[in-house]
Amino acid sequence: MPAIYRFDVKWGDTDAAGIVFYPNFYKWMDEATHHFFATAGFPSSRLLAERQTIIPLLEAHCQFKSSLLFEDEVEVQSEIQELRKKVFKIGHRFIKDGQPVAEGYEIRAWAHFNEKPKAFPIPEDIKEILLAGTSNR
Amino acid sequence: MPAIYRFDVKWGDTDAAGIVFYPNFYKWMDEATHHFFATAGFPSSRLLAERQTIIPLLEAHCQFKSSLLFEDEVEVQSEIQELRKKVFKIGHRFIKDGQPVAEGYEIRAWAHFNEKPKAFPIPEDIKEILLAGTSNR
Amino acid sequence: MPAIYRFDVKWGDTDAAGIVFYPNFYKWMDEATHHFFATAGFPSSRLLAERQTIIPLLEAHCQFKSSLLFEDEVEVQSEIQELRKKVFKIGHRFIKDGQPVAEGYEIRAWAHFNEKPKAFPIPEDIKEILLAGTSNR
Amino acid sequence: MPAIYRFDVKWGDTDAAGIVFYPNFYKWMDEATHHFFATAGFPSSRLLAERQTIIPLLEAHCQFKSSLLFEDEVEVQSEIQELRKKVFKIGHRFIKDGQPVAEGYEIRAWAHFNEKPKAFPIPEDIKEILLAGTSNR
Repeated sequence: MPAIYRFDVKWGDTDAAGIVFYPNFYKWMDEATHHFFATAGFPSSRLLAERQTIIPLLEAHCQFKSSLLFEDEVEVQSEIQELRKKVFKIGHRFIKDGQPVAEGYEIRAWAHFNEKPKAFPIPEDIKEILLAGTSNR
Repeated sequence: MPAIYRFDVKWGDTDAAGIVFYPNFYKWMDEATHHFFATAGFPSSRLLAERQTIIPLLEAHCQFKSSLLFEDEVEVQSEIQELRKKVFKIGHRFIKDGQPVAEGYEIRAWAHFNEKPKAFPIPEDIKEILLAGTSNR
Repeated sequence: MPAIYRFDVKWGDTDAAGIVFYPNFYKWMDEATHHFFATAGFPSSRLLAERQTIIPLLEAHCQFKSSLLFEDEVEVQSEIQELRKKVFKIGHRFIKDGQPVAEGYEIRAWAHFNEKPKAFPIPEDIKEILLAGTSNR
Repeated sequence: MPAIYRFDVKWGDTDAAGIVFYPNFYKWMDEATHHFFATAGFPSSRLLAERQTIIPLLEAHCQFKSSLLFEDEVEVQSEIQELRKKVFKIGHRFIKDGQPVAEGYEIRAWAHFNEKPKAFPIPEDIKEILLAGTSNR
């Protein structure tokens, strides 16, 4: 079962064509990923403070099916699609009024945050959470 | 020969990890595409005013190789990678100090801008420009 | 009684100093004003569609008392501070954990949205809503 | 003589009314301030790295005279308007085609960057630069 992140389109998210400026979809994927970890009990602030861990992007992709407009209410369904040693892939589906709007994914590393992010193996307790999807929420 | 778009990383582009917040790469790809058309003699404002044309996104992808920091000076090399009837693919390479930082592409439609964007065949004069890459600049 | 708008600080709202990038406070004031009208029964989309009305900025000010961090939960209290013929002033107070974080205001015109925004007298039904603050919510 | 910062309005800076989303003016004031210090020989990255100094906002104000549109070319004239012990005020004027578009200011502290920013007296070498405006560039 995917984690659900909800947002509504703000005035500042639109552009002169009257629709959402597309880089905002990636902002929302980022928010949905942070929300995914928060609902699993690992808010990013805690990961950073307790484990000096960040989850930097290796790759991100999004396919746009229809436009979003100001004040649209949107749901993002997020779930882990792949789990490798130091890397995971999280998929995001944007839904408005029950219809798919966009579909994307992020590939992120599990990394120590020093001067330069450095990937390291995803710890077992985190792996379990990711594997369980969001069943433990 | 690709079109070259230059920018430097602003303070507001960074996040609490001290590196660029990743959705900004898509903002820069969007800017680079508008720059590509402007240098080819078709600034987006002119496309919109004279032809009621916009170039909405169908898909966008980016792969991140290293982080960008505040004040980094970056060059984006953009070129058409595919040209279909109503759709084109434009690739973007981010270079810092001669090294690749990120590599992405956008797939965009050629569309009329009414209430809802509607794709139509890319006109011949535009096609020539796109096919020529940027040789006519 | 002021209208209440709630938000939490996103990862992308922060900068390399680890605190919120200050222009975001104005983004949130804008969101709080749209929320103010929506809760009063006049979402901006309806103002635009039914009355071709927008509420462009004449002036905006904010005083910052303490920093906001990633994941902070914030409440914005918004109320009309001045109501003139074609112009109104709306005040916004940012509260975190019961403590003031920032305080600002926006002065906005009531305007038709043609090629160029043009101010006109605020209609009586809107004036009543603004005068009533949010008592009719 | 004020420092001059130039930018052009990007597609993503506009909103569904076709004009610039107003919080962007503060983004540009921030950029103009960083540019002011950079041209004076103190890029913010150097202030942060060598002196652990940041310049957090205490207050910011802007008055909007006319709208900015996509692709507008804009010049920001920035100069120090007030210099106190730990605090300075920097004014910014936005000019398009020789006409004023907006006028604002920022009041910023000179601060150490530890867990929490803490103001301290502006060092003499910096004070001289600020007092000289930009005459030493």
